[in-house]
Amino acid sequence: MQKRISQREIARLANVRQETVSAVLNPNSRGNTRVSAESRERILRIAAEHNYRPNLQARILRGDSGSNLIGVLINARISQFFYDLLLPLEVELRKRHRRMIIGQLGNDAAEAESVLQNFIDYNLDGVIVLHHDISDGRRLFNHYLPLLPETVFLEVPPGVSGAAAVSIDFANGVREAVAHLAAGGRRRIALCMNDLRFLSMQMRLEGYRRGLEEAGRPFDESLIFIREPRPDYTFAELISDAVDLLAVRGKADAVIAGNDEWALALLREMNRRGLPVPGKVALVGYGNILNICRSTTPELTSIHHGMEELAAKLAAALEKPGTRFPPVLSHLVVRQSSI
Amino acid sequence: MQKRISQREIARLANVRQETVSAVLNPNSRGNTRVSAESRERILRIAAEHNYRPNLQARILRGDSGSNLIGVLINARISQFFYDLLLPLEVELRKRHRRMIIGQLGNDAAEAESVLQNFIDYNLDGVIVLHHDISDGRRLFNHYLPLLPETVFLEVPPGVSGAAAVSIDFANGVREAVAHLAAGGRRRIALCMNDLRFLSMQMRLEGYRRGLEEAGRPFDESLIFIREPRPDYTFAELISDAVDLLAVRGKADAVIAGNDEWALALLREMNRRGLPVPGKVALVGYGNILNICRSTTPELTSIHHGMEELAAKLAAALEKPGTRFPPVLSHLVVRQSSI
Repeated sequence: MQKRISQREIARLANVRQETVSAVLNPNSRGNTRVSAESRERILRIAAEHNYRPNLQARILRGDSGSNLIGVLINARISQFFYDLLLPLEVELRKRHRRMIIGQLGNDAAEAESVLQNFIDYNLDGVIVLHHDISDGRRLFNHYLPLLPETVFLEVPPGVSGAAAVSIDFANGVREAVAHLAAGGRRRIALCMNDLRFLSMQMRLEGYRRGLEEAGRPFDESLIFIREPRPDYTFAELISDAVDLLAVRGKADAVIAGNDEWALALLREMNRRGLPVPGKVALVGYGNILNICRSTTPELTSIHHGMEELAAKLAAALEKPGTRFPPVLSHLVVRQSSI
Repeated sequence: MQKRISQREIARLANVRQETVSAVLNPNSRGNTRVSAESRERILRIAAEHNYRPNLQARILRGDSGSNLIGVLINARISQFFYDLLLPLEVELRKRHRRMIIGQLGNDAAEAESVLQNFIDYNLDGVIVLHHDISDGRRLFNHYLPLLPETVFLEVPPGVSGAAAVSIDFANGVREAVAHLAAGGRRRIALCMNDLRFLSMQMRLEGYRRGLEEAGRPFDESLIFIREPRPDYTFAELISDAVDLLAVRGKADAVIAGNDEWALALLREMNRRGLPVPGKVALVGYGNILNICRSTTPELTSIHHGMEELAAKLAAALEKPGTRFPPVLSHLVVRQSSI
């Protein structure tokens, strides 16, 4: 790696004083140095020839520049969602001349703490928290928020205050799904998803209720299946029970699944039991993971988050602290499995 | 955001001179200041109480510390591959107390240049180039390599020299696929992929030849289909022609596709034409994109890159410039579509 040319060396080559070089090359220079047009041209030419770049660390120390670095906290081990959001977010930050540093969290508080400390060291210009479901997260974020620069959460965790947030309306897409299924003549529309610990799941249920209401259909407890796989209750057992309770005994002619992976498993189990999709039962996923939705036969109807819109709002929220953005609406994407 | 406490303020609170604080808190302090145990304890206690962190920018300027930042160049718009590699790579860098900055390239040289300039500004400790298929890439990388810190390429682009590289043996997985298909009694094994501009495709063809040779089968030109979709020749037309030429006229009983997306399209087209997979034709993809391979019926046999191994080698190569690692072998992952 070549050594970078300094302003002192440029001064020597241009045969001028270092103050003169500083006046030309530092955009926020506060000195009163007067520079002739000829010297200015010579300094700029030498700087260009030697690929001079202002020393960013020195400018940050002087307070002349932010770092333009934005830290982003994710946990890619648990969901494709982070993958799908990360790169649109990078595009949005780049538009604003900002660059992304990734901090990957598990659910371990000590690991998270070291990432946050590290973020403080880098003099970041902002932090975007996409993942915060970590043990002791409430204490941790309340402790670190005052030490961090402008911070934006994707959904503020319960008990944490003082940060900007962008949120997703998970309900709207489910409401649209119920409307679509009812319009297609489906009479017994079921909901199948994991537990209600998370707001995102509570909102799906709310969207389901709203959709039924708008379609003038009754809410029927026997068409709701909410369970979590456990060490002693496998995912395969859960899916088998879901098909049993909803499609066989409950006579559901449509199922909305909590996510695309569940929808895929339901599709397979229904095929195995001779319940063709969409002939006998219509099926809707959630997440619109294209690699899944376009690989199944029939292709899977699903619900989309609008990653580009979400990314744009997160990036904008960093620059407009205190602004309340309306939530990003989820929407139905119709494919073969529901028609 | 709270203002960070400085060494000067700690000195005031501890009632000692600033040199004393510096001697205690700067690990590489070069002074001769002697500090009493009592003062040292008091300084450390005050620093901890006020969440003191050494100023990383100042340490980088003094040459006491690297930035511990590694720039990673990707282009996620063109392939799931980058997604799948990015997060294992982050894990490997983190093990080495390094953090990742993402630079996303299109194929536009001016955009790439601004990312590289920006990487220079951040005083990175290293650069990992995962994507380099950009227009004018040869000129660009030859110009910037001397200005960048230690740089590692995933496959060095033709005409670029002076950088470390980690490579993938794309041939091995294809060779294994041919052996597996031949052992399963398939007699006419075809290869279907896009053009030979890229080394990765040339190596697939080489692996195919090697596999046939090892299985004692002849190489038959009529079982090779190498084309590229163009504006006037759609992907659907290409796939239809491939099934026509290979499976119908060529009587292939097995097809190895250049990637999983192609395998998915071939599967659909063969289903449409009443050529059941694997009953009539066995099918193998490349890339092992789990969301695709596990969503199809039958599940798709594919070829795996070993992302964790690749990530570990890329991270290690940064620390051992000049080391030649053996290439990361690709391997076959057998599922239902080939048995």
